[in-house]
Amino acid sequence: MKRLTETDAWAALVEHHQAIAATSLNQWFADDPQRFARMSLSAAGLVLDYSKNRLDTRALSLLTGLAVERGVETARDAMFGGRAINDTEQRAVLHTALRQRGGTRYDAGGVDVMPAVGEVRERMLAFAEAVRDGRWRGHGGDAIRDVVHIGIGGSDLGPCMACEALAGQGEERLRLHFVSNVDGAQLAGVLGRLDARRTLFVIASKTFTTIETMTNAASARAWLLANGARDDDIARHFVAVSTNAERVRSFGIDEANMFGFWDWVGGRYSMWSSVGLPIALAVGADGFRALLAGAERMDRHFLEAPLAANMPVLLALIGLWYRDFFGAASLCVVPYAQALARLPAYLQQLEMESNGKSVLHDGRPVDVGTCPVIWGEPGTNAQHSFFQLLHQGSDTIPVDFIMPLQVARELPGHQRLLLANCIAQSKALMVGKDEAEVRAELTAAGVAGDDLARLVPHKVFAGNRPSNTLVMPDLSPASLGALIALYEHKVFVQGVLWGVNSFDQWGVELGKQLASRIAGELDGDAGDAHDASTRGLIDLARAALDRSARRGER
Amino acid sequence: MKRLTETDAWAALVEHHQAIAATSLNQWFADDPQRFARMSLSAAGLVLDYSKNRLDTRALSLLTGLAVERGVETARDAMFGGRAINDTEQRAVLHTALRQRGGTRYDAGGVDVMPAVGEVRERMLAFAEAVRDGRWRGHGGDAIRDVVHIGIGGSDLGPCMACEALAGQGEERLRLHFVSNVDGAQLAGVLGRLDARRTLFVIASKTFTTIETMTNAASARAWLLANGARDDDIARHFVAVSTNAERVRSFGIDEANMFGFWDWVGGRYSMWSSVGLPIALAVGADGFRALLAGAERMDRHFLEAPLAANMPVLLALIGLWYRDFFGAASLCVVPYAQALARLPAYLQQLEMESNGKSVLHDGRPVDVGTCPVIWGEPGTNAQHSFFQLLHQGSDTIPVDFIMPLQVARELPGHQRLLLANCIAQSKALMVGKDEAEVRAELTAAGVAGDDLARLVPHKVFAGNRPSNTLVMPDLSPASLGALIALYEHKVFVQGVLWGVNSFDQWGVELGKQLASRIAGELDGDAGDAHDASTRGLIDLARAALDRSARRGER
Repeated sequence: MKRLTETDAWAALVEHHQAIAATSLNQWFADDPQRFARMSLSAAGLVLDYSKNRLDTRALSLLTGLAVERGVETARDAMFGGRAINDTEQRAVLHTALRQRGGTRYDAGGVDVMPAVGEVRERMLAFAEAVRDGRWRGHGGDAIRDVVHIGIGGSDLGPCMACEALAGQGEERLRLHFVSNVDGAQLAGVLGRLDARRTLFVIASKTFTTIETMTNAASARAWLLANGARDDDIARHFVAVSTNAERVRSFGIDEANMFGFWDWVGGRYSMWSSVGLPIALAVGADGFRALLAGAERMDRHFLEAPLAANMPVLLALIGLWYRDFFGAASLCVVPYAQALARLPAYLQQLEMESNGKSVLHDGRPVDVGTCPVIWGEPGTNAQHSFFQLLHQGSDTIPVDFIMPLQVARELPGHQRLLLANCIAQSKALMVGKDEAEVRAELTAAGVAGDDLARLVPHKVFAGNRPSNTLVMPDLSPASLGALIALYEHKVFVQGVLWGVNSFDQWGVELGKQLASRIAGELDGDAGDAHDASTRGLIDLARAALDRSARRGER
Repeated sequence: MKRLTETDAWAALVEHHQAIAATSLNQWFADDPQRFARMSLSAAGLVLDYSKNRLDTRALSLLTGLAVERGVETARDAMFGGRAINDTEQRAVLHTALRQRGGTRYDAGGVDVMPAVGEVRERMLAFAEAVRDGRWRGHGGDAIRDVVHIGIGGSDLGPCMACEALAGQGEERLRLHFVSNVDGAQLAGVLGRLDARRTLFVIASKTFTTIETMTNAASARAWLLANGARDDDIARHFVAVSTNAERVRSFGIDEANMFGFWDWVGGRYSMWSSVGLPIALAVGADGFRALLAGAERMDRHFLEAPLAANMPVLLALIGLWYRDFFGAASLCVVPYAQALARLPAYLQQLEMESNGKSVLHDGRPVDVGTCPVIWGEPGTNAQHSFFQLLHQGSDTIPVDFIMPLQVARELPGHQRLLLANCIAQSKALMVGKDEAEVRAELTAAGVAGDDLARLVPHKVFAGNRPSNTLVMPDLSPASLGALIALYEHKVFVQGVLWGVNSFDQWGVELGKQLASRIAGELDGDAGDAHDASTRGLIDLARAALDRSARRGER
């Protein structure tokens, strides 16, 4: 496989970037009244406006050419076709099978996965409905009121983000809580507010060995037993999202309430599987099916639309353009909806765990920057925080604005202001304010002389700062499903362009190994030969744990 | 004033950076068993381990020399001395006065601010205690159970972060809620769970004109009146953190319950003022005083310690080293405590709004990168999300690990794992795992031949990735106060080094102006001449608002 910089398209892109890097967005809009019409498109109910980006028709056509040259279409078909594209683990990548409703076969290793997918999904949804309508009862005979989902990473971020995004969609029958961190303060804080007889725990860990999740699960079980339940009540209060039947049973969970998934579903692509159980508990079986249907619409768009009018492909190419030609080290994601507050954290895992790699499939090092840092906070809040830097900082940072037109719980007059702010920010970043404008404004306000000269440069906005705006019609399950599938496929396309495996995550292993050894040393095991810093930190931690133990706090 | 790159220290730093950029941290630790002892220090109860950074004694001494040459000490004394160092607004910067307990005068414009500081603080704390112990009652005679703090930016992030950080410190008498976003879903979601008779609203807006805050305050008042209160009950349920007595009164708030602050307290430095009222409501007057005392200890360290052993100065210099010599565009902050989940968002405002600038005091453009992007999530969660990229991504991203040794609500065995993971991650980033180690490990696991050759490069960790570890003894108010003051002073020092004004924020103005115009257009005012993208987005928003109006949802 060619390196990216050795492709035919690359040299042309380098040259063209130099030719247009100095052109301003204002100029492009002035020159072409059709720019918005040409550089926006709809798919699966979403509208992407990518016209406020620093590229022109030729740049887009060269970038699309790069996608062709890198074999994006072939790779896409290999993924949907169940080929083992996760080559370091020899696994198919078929999260798209979880949301398809037609009769298409999805083969992994020659076996159609759809019958198993359907069976688990229907069992999981039936369970969710039983909890929602009060048929499922705790050991004291009460209906469930609180659900505590215990999982971490891919077993946490998706359901947590989605449940928050979809809150307020109709009646809320259950209160959902998410516990992920091994920090005991998180679980203790949640349990302190709950009634054990009315609480259901969902333990999500594929192997049922994830240290954080199993530590929290054990503490939750101890709490249940300390609050009036007996051992054989555990099965009324604990269910599992896992594939390890033996461990699930020995924890005390009824295997009938174990909901599995498969090795062709990566953790960060798993909210469509039984990992999404909390979503089904929150919005019901119909809501969960609508989420899948929204994602499936985006899948079809990705499969069928030509590259030049393909929303995930365009997002991917634009991202690569900033990353590798403008040197942008990060992408800021700003949802204008408080309900999407956890979307940036979700996308951090999706993008950075997938493409935070530096070797090609064949093991050679990459020769360009791969995944940038993904970060962000909801608007309008972020305007009162880091937007100062986006407007006047020393770096140009591309932004994805996400703008749901409607939210579930509106109050009079609020939505108009929210939308106006979102639109105003992308415009302000682009148009800026030059010295002449600032001078005129200050002069009109009565500022003159030295004060005027001194203030002007501080109030200038360079402008020409790019953004995408993604318009969602609402925060319904279908719209959310389409949005998440859009970013999934964007990540996939970028992985193909960069030539990395987006579906492994070897980079998490070393820390796990070392943590396990150091945990032993904190308990008094003979220590490894550490560097002086690690030794020093271990000494501080050990002294604190010893003090706690002496105070009987452990 | 010289540009940074024209200083004497700069040239030496450039040269020395080239000389040592290839040296590995592993090598430095191997060469110097005293590295941790030499490159760690205590202040105000915190320990900073900065030994895992890519610098040596000479680099530190050159950086300290740069601080001297840039006049950090003089600038610091000017700040504490009440000089109008916020020169574009001609204001003193005296948030440190809010936490000093001695009899020192703090002059702003020749007037000692301390009498006013003391008066407001004592009145605010007395009010907090009255609400906490149930003497303050709602209009129906009930004690307050829920407090809704309405503010945004600096009037939100500090109290919100601190209340979450300090949760579980003793008895929780009140439930605190934070509403910031103009998105009505946030306020509606909070109000849906509350009893109007037992709810107190704190409205925090210096001018009482902030559009988000006043929109939310008006909706909150409407909710109170719709839930059984009369106009003259408003003063039992609303208090203000503001300086605009007229607007506060006309809202219906008793001026006796208006808690002011001053123009020498920037929004992002205001949690020590009456903006911290929710903190006092959460942890009581003694807790709030302990928070101030912790910050004051750090202030004294900053004032008194020599630059080479000054914790905020060292953090600032190390940050500049990565930013301007290694080209790091971001700093990742990872607190190993779920209670510090909002710390990265707090620091985003503190750092990025302060130093996200690109002109010097005198108006000339900067010639190096200023504030990087600040981002992060709590550990261990982040290990299951973006840590893949920190370990194996194409960029080196410096990390601040924040490690509280004890948390408020512990569960057996959890804290040991949390600390072990924090220590393991900084070690893993540094030591990496080379090809020989990977090959040996895989061979021992029975992998051979083509599989071995194929896998090895994917499991290599380059290592040599730097971090600071900040050890906090606990999550007490005093430790939190010291931590926040540390970052405040770090930001101050970086502002001095870069030569920018850290205390204005002109970059937020343009978006506000445009939002106000576009909000009018969404209501049907005649439109400005917009670019086609802005026009297109306005059309989409307007159509959605019209549909909502027709459905009677507004």
